[in-house]
Amino acid sequence: MLYSKLFGKTIKSVPKGEETISYKLLYQGGFIRKSTAGRYYFLPLGWRVHRKIEAVIREEMNESGAMEMLSPLLHPIELWQETNRIQSVSFELMRIKDRQGVEFALGGTAEEMFVDLVRKMNLSYKDLPFNVYQFSTKFRDELRPRGGLLRVREFVMKDAYSFARNSEDFQKQYQKMKEVYKKIFTRFDLETLVVEADSGYIGGEDGHEFVVSCPIGEDTIFVCDQCDYRADSEKAEFKRFPKNPQEKIKPLKIVKQPEWVCTMKDNIKYYRKPLWRYLKNVVYKDDKGRIIIASIRGDQDVNETKLKKVIGAGSLAPARDKDLEKIGSRPGWVHSWGHKGVVYVGDLGLKMVKNFIGGQKEKTTDTIDVNYGRDFKYKLLADIVNAQEGDFCPRCQQGKLRKKQAVELGHIFQLGFHYTKLMKGADFVDKDGGKKPFYMGCYGVGLGRTMATIVEIHHDKKGIVWPKEVTPFNVHLVNLRETSQRAKEIYQRLVNDGFEVLYDDRVNVSAGEKFADADLIGIPVRLVISKRTGDTIEWKYRQSKRAELLQYNEVVKKLKAKS
Amino acid sequence: MLYSKLFGKTIKSVPKGEETISYKLLYQGGFIRKSTAGRYYFLPLGWRVHRKIEAVIREEMNESGAMEMLSPLLHPIELWQETNRIQSVSFELMRIKDRQGVEFALGGTAEEMFVDLVRKMNLSYKDLPFNVYQFSTKFRDELRPRGGLLRVREFVMKDAYSFARNSEDFQKQYQKMKEVYKKIFTRFDLETLVVEADSGYIGGEDGHEFVVSCPIGEDTIFVCDQCDYRADSEKAEFKRFPKNPQEKIKPLKIVKQPEWVCTMKDNIKYYRKPLWRYLKNVVYKDDKGRIIIASIRGDQDVNETKLKKVIGAGSLAPARDKDLEKIGSRPGWVHSWGHKGVVYVGDLGLKMVKNFIGGQKEKTTDTIDVNYGRDFKYKLLADIVNAQEGDFCPRCQQGKLRKKQAVELGHIFQLGFHYTKLMKGADFVDKDGGKKPFYMGCYGVGLGRTMATIVEIHHDKKGIVWPKEVTPFNVHLVNLRETSQRAKEIYQRLVNDGFEVLYDDRVNVSAGEKFADADLIGIPVRLVISKRTGDTIEWKYRQSKRAELLQYNEVVKKLKAKS
Repeated sequence: MLYSKLFGKTIKSVPKGEETISYKLLYQGGFIRKSTAGRYYFLPLGWRVHRKIEAVIREEMNESGAMEMLSPLLHPIELWQETNRIQSVSFELMRIKDRQGVEFALGGTAEEMFVDLVRKMNLSYKDLPFNVYQFSTKFRDELRPRGGLLRVREFVMKDAYSFARNSEDFQKQYQKMKEVYKKIFTRFDLETLVVEADSGYIGGEDGHEFVVSCPIGEDTIFVCDQCDYRADSEKAEFKRFPKNPQEKIKPLKIVKQPEWVCTMKDNIKYYRKPLWRYLKNVVYKDDKGRIIIASIRGDQDVNETKLKKVIGAGSLAPARDKDLEKIGSRPGWVHSWGHKGVVYVGDLGLKMVKNFIGGQKEKTTDTIDVNYGRDFKYKLLADIVNAQEGDFCPRCQQGKLRKKQAVELGHIFQLGFHYTKLMKGADFVDKDGGKKPFYMGCYGVGLGRTMATIVEIHHDKKGIVWPKEVTPFNVHLVNLRETSQRAKEIYQRLVNDGFEVLYDDRVNVSAGEKFADADLIGIPVRLVISKRTGDTIEWKYRQSKRAELLQYNEVVKKLKAKS
Repeated sequence: MLYSKLFGKTIKSVPKGEETISYKLLYQGGFIRKSTAGRYYFLPLGWRVHRKIEAVIREEMNESGAMEMLSPLLHPIELWQETNRIQSVSFELMRIKDRQGVEFALGGTAEEMFVDLVRKMNLSYKDLPFNVYQFSTKFRDELRPRGGLLRVREFVMKDAYSFARNSEDFQKQYQKMKEVYKKIFTRFDLETLVVEADSGYIGGEDGHEFVVSCPIGEDTIFVCDQCDYRADSEKAEFKRFPKNPQEKIKPLKIVKQPEWVCTMKDNIKYYRKPLWRYLKNVVYKDDKGRIIIASIRGDQDVNETKLKKVIGAGSLAPARDKDLEKIGSRPGWVHSWGHKGVVYVGDLGLKMVKNFIGGQKEKTTDTIDVNYGRDFKYKLLADIVNAQEGDFCPRCQQGKLRKKQAVELGHIFQLGFHYTKLMKGADFVDKDGGKKPFYMGCYGVGLGRTMATIVEIHHDKKGIVWPKEVTPFNVHLVNLRETSQRAKEIYQRLVNDGFEVLYDDRVNVSAGEKFADADLIGIPVRLVISKRTGDTIEWKYRQSKRAELLQYNEVVKKLKAKS
């Protein structure tokens, strides 16, 4: 490719209003351009990288025995109704009617589509297990797209769906896909952490995320500093130990409380005790209209993902004053017991503290030396709070959890029977002639986000440093001579020898500018033809400072070793 | 690929309600499945074919110097407003709002998107000409999808957009793309006709369609039987000759007419003259609210595409009774002259007949011996009727036009300045420093329709016969022995030698059934391992009746020669 003919050249100006280094470099290097918020064009250079990412994923997926196919992007809305997902996905789902009034969802994920296809195929146990995948555009009506390609509204995703006869067969598929994902990200020179994760609106059992530790990442994860426990913050558990085991349990007392003591801050000022000594009550309303009181320790925060699971809610919203009125309360007066018509849920941490302060229900009194089990007790007591930096690891119980920011690149889900039980007829004929639902898994990777993450990890002050598997070209050939004859010749020879070459053939552009462009674009190998090089060629790795003069044959040899 | 593991096997049942052989075979062979009307899944086998079609197109496009990229599928509606296309595309365009109320069009074609991108790039004449293309999903809200993949609502299209400094540079691009398209279809073993075509709602100057003559095709084309003139029916012109040159022009007469004479049929019964002797008036209302009277010969039909162009209308609808009332007329009484507040347009054929009958405006009288130019005359006299089988060729003027049905596979358009003048800032800096609009072209191929057309053309009673460039696998290997050891070995060797092999490894399936499946699926080469073959392999071409026994090395040699 002649650089002079390339559509989408480097540019000095910086994109407006975007904070990530990956967007800045992809913009300046001529890889992408924004259409509207969260929707991007991939320019020829950027699309080459995207296609290489696609090729690596395809190769590894095929190697694993998965089969590529394609499903429509517009999904009949009835399918999403069958699985009740319209509600849980909520606003992220875009819906459209055709001119005959038939409604569709714009696919953001395609579980229903694949189940609908598979259930029409009359499969038997002999056809199982199998794994089918596609590369296709996904739509997500994100409220706040950001970071260039890191969080967008439209992107190409590789999504795979596995169908098995039972949980055991599925487990083999799942483990295989875990290995496939590790291989894929290794080929992108990305060090991924595999973290336990909640399945979110995808549903089913939990799964694993493949994340890259990176300050710009929007995922918070916890990593044990002693064992291999790793989990997303929505999912992360931790080991609770008694906070004050040496204390004696005292009798419950109702004490006078000054009127100004209302918030948690006021309590600390007044009682001068650490946060964990107080009971904290957080009130929600769920999608079924229930009022939920989550009772936790004062030093902790409700994890809404966990809470939703415990109470079986589709969504949660903070209760409003009028909701509190209904249960005879008001802000600051919510009590850990005694409100009628509510669902109480307590966190396991309530059992780890003796003699709590709190549970006030009115202005002028307070209860102290409150003890869970003696003074109040819940039907629902579970893990409903966030893990915190320094909490004990739930696995080894000795290491401490460390909090990190990360980018989620891949997600694999153990769907189980979630979809095949909700969708009628999603079953196969087993050996005994009986019908059984498929046991499913699904496996996604976002390609654009992967591309951005590669740049976040692999760059320096001068620009991008592409890993060899995803570089848009194998070689960046720069001509600095006044005539281009020798450079043209080298270019043609390299192309004939099967290499992808970006040839900077521009005239009236300085060597400095050409080198700066090469560094910005980030192709791993730069070759220079100049007065100085004579009948040799200057070879320099993008990340190296040293150049060397090589014969053409040596260049080919080194490139072959590299690619 | 082991056939036993393939998702999407052959099936005996016939799909419901679909009439084309391509859909039947693609369904039965396990290539595609319907989701909803006009929306299809490509199963692994079908997707392999689709990807091969894509690869051929990509190869030829890249070879021509075009650059692949990708634009978003959701287009900001403002862009479609800039070019007034919402109106002209009308109902085929699907529109959607995101949760913030921002409206988008689901891309059915992407001229605006590419112009919007290019105008942001501050290009100069040095960057020109260039041609960028993409493979991406297109949405068309077709009223009547049909024929399986022949007319759908969602499909992958290769669409290219060229930008040039001027018309001359564009012409070179256009001619190059014509050649590229010819090469592409030749590689698919499709004999295409290049026909002149109207640009429809794409706009701009006219273009060319690449069509395949095929009875199931929805395109009507006209082909001269003596020269190379070929045109789509919307566009086809023809040479008009005087119908009755020997007759003398007679004076206009008003004659009594029995009340029952009203329609064209009645006229023929009454006057006993051929159709071409009568004046026919067809009334329309256009998108601007104008009443249009198209005055033509009785033996012809209005070509609405031509008529729209002549009067500059966006759309036309047949006039209703109340529209006729407004101009003081009623059905059957419309006169070739004299109505006020209407736009009269005459066809050139009016000049080819002496002494017309007709132009009646009331019940009991009629005018005869009417002559255009003497008795009535229009400001607008143009070609506004359809060509007909047997009309004279407009080019050689000697050959006759033959009518054929065809499938449109590709379309190339000379857009000219159509978009770059409507869209503000779509210009480049020319040598003299001045700003000039780009001269554009665009070039589309539908991949699914191409796949269906290949099947329409390449099949026999037993199934599909894939051309080698698009076959899902190079070889269909069938094992008929009781043990699979030798077949497995051959399979593995072929795969290691770089061939794509579909290996029918099923047990308890008869030879007859395996052969029938191989014929249905249509891979060009079938290899058989049976008791009979010993240490040889049976080789048979899909379309041949003769098989031969070959050594492994000979098989490889033949396959290499073939692929």
